[in-house]
Amino acid sequence: MRSGIVTGIGDDCAVLAIPRGHQLLVTTDFTLEGVHFRRDWHPAAVVGRLCLTRGLSDIAAMGGDPIAAFLSLAFPRSLPQTWVEAFLQGLLRLANEFRVTLAGGDTAESRKGVVADIVVVGSVPIGEAILRSGARPGDGIYVTGELGGSSAAVEELSARRRIHPQHYPRLFRPLPRLVVGRVLRQRGLASAMIDLSDGLSTDLAHICEASGVGARILAASIPRAVVGRPGIGVDLRVALHGGEDYELLFTAPRAKRIPGRIAGIPVSLIGQITRGQRLVLIDENGAETRLHPQGWQHFSSGRSAR
Amino acid sequence: MRSGIVTGIGDDCAVLAIPRGHQLLVTTDFTLEGVHFRRDWHPAAVVGRLCLTRGLSDIAAMGGDPIAAFLSLAFPRSLPQTWVEAFLQGLLRLANEFRVTLAGGDTAESRKGVVADIVVVGSVPIGEAILRSGARPGDGIYVTGELGGSSAAVEELSARRRIHPQHYPRLFRPLPRLVVGRVLRQRGLASAMIDLSDGLSTDLAHICEASGVGARILAASIPRAVVGRPGIGVDLRVALHGGEDYELLFTAPRAKRIPGRIAGIPVSLIGQITRGQRLVLIDENGAETRLHPQGWQHFSSGRSAR
Repeated sequence: MRSGIVTGIGDDCAVLAIPRGHQLLVTTDFTLEGVHFRRDWHPAAVVGRLCLTRGLSDIAAMGGDPIAAFLSLAFPRSLPQTWVEAFLQGLLRLANEFRVTLAGGDTAESRKGVVADIVVVGSVPIGEAILRSGARPGDGIYVTGELGGSSAAVEELSARRRIHPQHYPRLFRPLPRLVVGRVLRQRGLASAMIDLSDGLSTDLAHICEASGVGARILAASIPRAVVGRPGIGVDLRVALHGGEDYELLFTAPRAKRIPGRIAGIPVSLIGQITRGQRLVLIDENGAETRLHPQGWQHFSSGRSAR
Repeated sequence: MRSGIVTGIGDDCAVLAIPRGHQLLVTTDFTLEGVHFRRDWHPAAVVGRLCLTRGLSDIAAMGGDPIAAFLSLAFPRSLPQTWVEAFLQGLLRLANEFRVTLAGGDTAESRKGVVADIVVVGSVPIGEAILRSGARPGDGIYVTGELGGSSAAVEELSARRRIHPQHYPRLFRPLPRLVVGRVLRQRGLASAMIDLSDGLSTDLAHICEASGVGARILAASIPRAVVGRPGIGVDLRVALHGGEDYELLFTAPRAKRIPGRIAGIPVSLIGQITRGQRLVLIDENGAETRLHPQGWQHFSSGRSAR
């Protein structure tokens, strides 16, 4: 995909070649100090990686292939140069991992706090983008990986407890599920898809709203992240509402056989799409409760809207 | 071009169709309070218009056609809702004028000041983008419109003098030269092009550096903006170094006949590309001085890099 860049940094625009028979995907995401990260909690390289993960994860959620990223970065004059270098290093390492070229951007001085805005451009064969609006009653609801690992870490940090990065990889080594997204698109398995950035309850509500359907979720089926040492599973509340996991949530018609793993990542059936508009949670005793979107607030009420 | 948007706001990515035989153009530009605008100087609608102008002007400078814009906007909680509404109104009015669709973006809370990041996606027939690197010795150097009008207004405001918006249209009604850029590309007239956002001396240096050439500019030929009432031409210094005019600077081989007006906009021959790397200014007495890039500082040293 590197061949997609005809002219990169250094002209008024980047010039990109889009593969013949493909449509363009574009996504843009803020990563703001005090909203999405704290400089005393997140190492600079993690913030850079997170910034690009947010964009790549949106490409993954369409079943697309990323081509190029554009970074707009504003920071206060007081910010150490080493912080900016480590930020870029974290971002470029992830870009390299997924063969995405940093093809442009803008830098400026901010009045307070680090402001990063990432744009990722990708492509998908014409008509094959997996939208939020394709879920139909009877479809199974699936998630990749485990949920709640990122917000469990933030809860520990908020309580001023020290944690080891290797016990909380979802926060300290965010990863977009690009390969899984691409496989689901290539095999025509998913009817609708979204990435889990706001939390399962909120992102499921986005799919249901866009598709005009409801959902029933089995609490016992939700894969919960194992964190800390000794490792323990996160609370159901954290798995249901915690954000920033960057796993994929998708639906698939009953006729499709969904493998238990795709590209090495576990895939769990957690419920079913229903008629109507209700989101219902079935607890471990079989009791039904209404599931309200409680997209988890990331240590600030200044939540980024998506 | 509206048909370019397959899926707009409301999914993980926007899905765009790129015309067959075209390449993609992508540009991203910050518009920051205290760097590019001041809330006490610039009405909100002007800031919204400026924000999109910055992106569209980069598309114009490649000879391209804009398709869609993406706005990332962060603002402090204290900002009046009416400011945001007027900002969007100014931006959308310009978008409508040039048939560009606002196809996505992100909003968030900033810690201080308004932070806007605009992404504009456009297209150009394969291989026809007008780059900065195509200027050759002997080419004529041309600019559209008049220069210095925007910074003349900022100088007045900085000196705490009241000015009337209608006497300073370049500041209060910024306009991208999309039609001129497209005509130059369609007729194959320009060998290199850039938009004048940093100021003539700096942007000419960008073309010369990218093309590996020098330039000789005739001071008497530089079209100076007429501002204020009664209207007077701006100082040569302001026309040479003032930024944010969003006119086009281009070069053309001697064999090409460049009309005195394109799409109603005056086009002025101001000099010639030379061998070597020097930028030389010839004053009204025929004396030569070295022209140094002095890209004008917009009321802050936190100048946006481009």
